[in-house]
Amino acid sequence: MSMEKLNIIKLGGSIVSDPEKLNVALNSFSQTTGFKILVHGGGNQASKWAKQLDIPIQIIDGRRITDDAMLEIVTMVYGGLLNKKIVAKLQSKKTNALGMSGADGNIISSVRRPVGVIDFGNVGDIREVGVENLISLLNSNFVPTICALTHDGQGNILNTNADSIAGNIAQSMSERYDVTLTYAFELNGVLSNFEDKNSVIPLINNVQFQAMKKDGSINAGMIPKVFNAIEASKNGVNQVYICHYSTLDQANKGTQVCYQ
Amino acid sequence: MSMEKLNIIKLGGSIVSDPEKLNVALNSFSQTTGFKILVHGGGNQASKWAKQLDIPIQIIDGRRITDDAMLEIVTMVYGGLLNKKIVAKLQSKKTNALGMSGADGNIISSVRRPVGVIDFGNVGDIREVGVENLISLLNSNFVPTICALTHDGQGNILNTNADSIAGNIAQSMSERYDVTLTYAFELNGVLSNFEDKNSVIPLINNVQFQAMKKDGSINAGMIPKVFNAIEASKNGVNQVYICHYSTLDQANKGTQVCYQ
Repeated sequence: MSMEKLNIIKLGGSIVSDPEKLNVALNSFSQTTGFKILVHGGGNQASKWAKQLDIPIQIIDGRRITDDAMLEIVTMVYGGLLNKKIVAKLQSKKTNALGMSGADGNIISSVRRPVGVIDFGNVGDIREVGVENLISLLNSNFVPTICALTHDGQGNILNTNADSIAGNIAQSMSERYDVTLTYAFELNGVLSNFEDKNSVIPLINNVQFQAMKKDGSINAGMIPKVFNAIEASKNGVNQVYICHYSTLDQANKGTQVCYQ
Repeated sequence: MSMEKLNIIKLGGSIVSDPEKLNVALNSFSQTTGFKILVHGGGNQASKWAKQLDIPIQIIDGRRITDDAMLEIVTMVYGGLLNKKIVAKLQSKKTNALGMSGADGNIISSVRRPVGVIDFGNVGDIREVGVENLISLLNSNFVPTICALTHDGQGNILNTNADSIAGNIAQSMSERYDVTLTYAFELNGVLSNFEDKNSVIPLINNVQFQAMKKDGSINAGMIPKVFNAIEASKNGVNQVYICHYSTLDQANKGTQVCYQ
């Protein structure tokens, strides 16, 4: 029996924060067919509101330190302002979006990251994806639209990286669906020459990725993105892409990433 | 064929803003059996955050004037901070809460209130309840947990009174369920003597309500609450109660309100 297709698409915070780019991305997303899930970031908007409220921003290696005051900000900005804006816009495009954090319907539970050299505060590492509840929502024709918040099952919201959420959902749902995971961003894909926006590599595997890291031909900022994509492929996600946010509904888009 | 029971419970903003009261109310809510929906306010928290951000607060006859800056605040506070906090706490009490605004799953569409003597700004009057989508969620064992936001179907979030949301959902769902609508607040019910917190009137109908308004024996602050409850009963909701937030799971609670 062939499995049904499921598209899981992650939109970065810089797209979500820009009304014109967001509109293009949501038009493209609403044109994709079949079962789908949207995951969105919003870090730069959280920083903007934190500044307005004089709450200090601390980011180490791209990860936000989330004390109690910052947790209130990300809960408001990710779960409220951005998530509801995206949902209302998708509804106007006839996509039956249903905005969620990981707490809603218990779709993503997490554990507070242990304090090591750094205390990240209210940050959660994913424990479990609520596959059955997500399937119920998909079968009722909802489009889960998920922000970068999870919960610990003890009544606490935790801040969790949106790329990790998209990757974990894709891996967990791969047991039941033919999953395509797409990381959408502002470039056309992984570039062989960072100066040339059209030098998109159509297909990259782990051996090529390791070689590009070694010879420095891959841009430093791209490394974690490609790493996440390689990991998802390695862990059973059938198709993984890194592509431009305007091309979500296209068959040939950006860079396909395969472990092997 | 007898209809299934559905409990729709509205929690006022002053309970939601107080961690101890909220915990008592959510314990009581989580003990109610069968299909259920929670609706919550949060006006005083919105005002608190508006003050911190130096955004002017204008409330006329208990209704908040919602300009663009205030819409961002209520979207953050109702849809994000309060809704996610309530959902995470209900999840820890083994209630499978799913937090929603009216935009999510298109469960409440509204029209922007026409400008009359007062321009309320981004305030929506309810147009339609998405009954089928709510039923899908209930049948998948989710507990819709709904904040005071709706959408206009054109991509815009609008601010809508939580009492009206609870009343409209109850009326619309009454075609399909045996609905009990409960307005939970900090008193034990409608009081015959406002100085005596135990002088709860067990049952009040419209004739008695009109008489109490006339002779001044009902407290002014109670009038809109009882009016909403009377309207719900008049419009087909089988049981309507006004009661203390700790008694949601009790059979005999507060004041039952009937139109006739």
